[in-house]
Amino acid sequence: MTATAIALGPESDALLADAIVRGGGKPAPTAEAEGLVWGGNDPAEFPADLPTSIRWVQLPSAGVEHWFAAGIVQRHPDVVWTSAAGAFAATVAEHAFMLLLAGVRALPEHLAATTWRQREFFDRVGTLRGARVAIIGAGGIGRTLVPMLASVGATVIAVNRSGRPVDGAAETLPSDRVDEVYPRVDHVVVAAPATDATRHLIGREQLARLGSHSWVINVARGSLVDTDALVDALLDNTIGGAGLDVTDPEPLPDGHPLWTLPNVIITPHDSNPPSVRVTAYAAHVTENVRRFVAGEALTARIDPGVGY
Amino acid sequence: MTATAIALGPESDALLADAIVRGGGKPAPTAEAEGLVWGGNDPAEFPADLPTSIRWVQLPSAGVEHWFAAGIVQRHPDVVWTSAAGAFAATVAEHAFMLLLAGVRALPEHLAATTWRQREFFDRVGTLRGARVAIIGAGGIGRTLVPMLASVGATVIAVNRSGRPVDGAAETLPSDRVDEVYPRVDHVVVAAPATDATRHLIGREQLARLGSHSWVINVARGSLVDTDALVDALLDNTIGGAGLDVTDPEPLPDGHPLWTLPNVIITPHDSNPPSVRVTAYAAHVTENVRRFVAGEALTARIDPGVGY
Repeated sequence: MTATAIALGPESDALLADAIVRGGGKPAPTAEAEGLVWGGNDPAEFPADLPTSIRWVQLPSAGVEHWFAAGIVQRHPDVVWTSAAGAFAATVAEHAFMLLLAGVRALPEHLAATTWRQREFFDRVGTLRGARVAIIGAGGIGRTLVPMLASVGATVIAVNRSGRPVDGAAETLPSDRVDEVYPRVDHVVVAAPATDATRHLIGREQLARLGSHSWVINVARGSLVDTDALVDALLDNTIGGAGLDVTDPEPLPDGHPLWTLPNVIITPHDSNPPSVRVTAYAAHVTENVRRFVAGEALTARIDPGVGY
Repeated sequence: MTATAIALGPESDALLADAIVRGGGKPAPTAEAEGLVWGGNDPAEFPADLPTSIRWVQLPSAGVEHWFAAGIVQRHPDVVWTSAAGAFAATVAEHAFMLLLAGVRALPEHLAATTWRQREFFDRVGTLRGARVAIIGAGGIGRTLVPMLASVGATVIAVNRSGRPVDGAAETLPSDRVDEVYPRVDHVVVAAPATDATRHLIGREQLARLGSHSWVINVARGSLVDTDALVDALLDNTIGGAGLDVTDPEPLPDGHPLWTLPNVIITPHDSNPPSVRVTAYAAHVTENVRRFVAGEALTARIDPGVGY
């Protein structure tokens, strides 16, 4: 079997070339290729014509409005187009997972220690194995988080608008029943969009229903959690801790109590930094090349009729 | 279908009772049960006779020498016995995974910050997605770690004695080729037994072949890593950081440089604390009850002829 030829544009890129090879493709000039992996964000750089050998083009962003506005997708109706939708959700999910794991295993206290206090930590280190975790908002980030939690033996209760079952979750509740979830779970990850309906979704009442070991993780928007109620719950040990990639207010001002409370991890909205986006795109390319080579359905296929 | 009756001994235990229910069993008195989940570690407490209805007994420890020494397993040749072997490997693997994720995502620096420094962290936060991770020593801990790493999109190169392929690893090398692995991976997790052959397995030469972003995680024994070489590599930024649940010397003495180097996470050999063992055992019970109810092969079945 000859390897499937995949071109790369607008310029050579070692990371993306490696991603193509890892997916089982063979880097080749566009004129000889069946697929084209695009690394640039400016539609003006895209070739006016594509050789007829090209059956698939991979674009590098999750949103592709600008590619439609430039008329590029429409110009090639016989080509399958894919975006990078979902590729960046995974890095935010990884960050949420890291915050939760680090919290449950008492990493803030460990990092503050400068002496070996094993017996004390024996009572502080927890596990996600056997834990129940609520994921509130089961869009791309939430759905990607489910298998990560499953890999360490946690059980997920998902909450989404419709209540339509989320793959891999033990249970899915519709958002109008979200308040039922707090007494039933060990930890909560907030990954819902910021809307009027989700403002202060987690407030005093919700925090009061969690356990003294419970961690609250927010990788969505600061407004979803009532900051004052959270600070009080942390001071009172109503909950175990909080891992926040987003805050309200944001940026979190100097001197805010969240900076110095012992069981809080603050990351300054950096769960999906530019440096990681490149790697995440490369992983997405590898997966789509693998699927293209195998003749499987591609991830994040663009529907030209819908525009994304 | 009536639920499968499972007994619990030597005394009632809410966590284990819940574990039985989660696995699909129905808690019942021993005289009416088909399976018996044992929570106690003292063989003297075990009943002298078992009702003939009991077809399976689950014991709570990974090593079961004392149950054989007391003659208990041998006394019931018609019963299937299972240990908790493997149950605790998962919590050590979870800890190793947490140390690596926290390191790659720059958690030590985040926790030291008391002001919002987003742009600075944009260059510091990495990802395991697309990363290559070596797992050196693919016993219970190493094998359990593979699907955890896969869940966040990392690729594993495993090293074990025989080189026999490890499930889920992209590649497995025999231990006599371990030195080939360092230039090829982003991060290293040490999970091998401490022997004369593995002393200072990671020394100056091995560290020099890693990258400046590479994290070294040790959840095995301190002697596997040359501490002085590690400190030098951390001071020189030869590697990205180290996450150590075990140290050499251990306990790590007060004032040792590893306590205060910025990219080091020390946990005082607490990856599998007594508190977590209980939860881990409960998760193991749930899984074996599920298998027993479904008529599947049980995990960690004891071979009475071999003694474990």
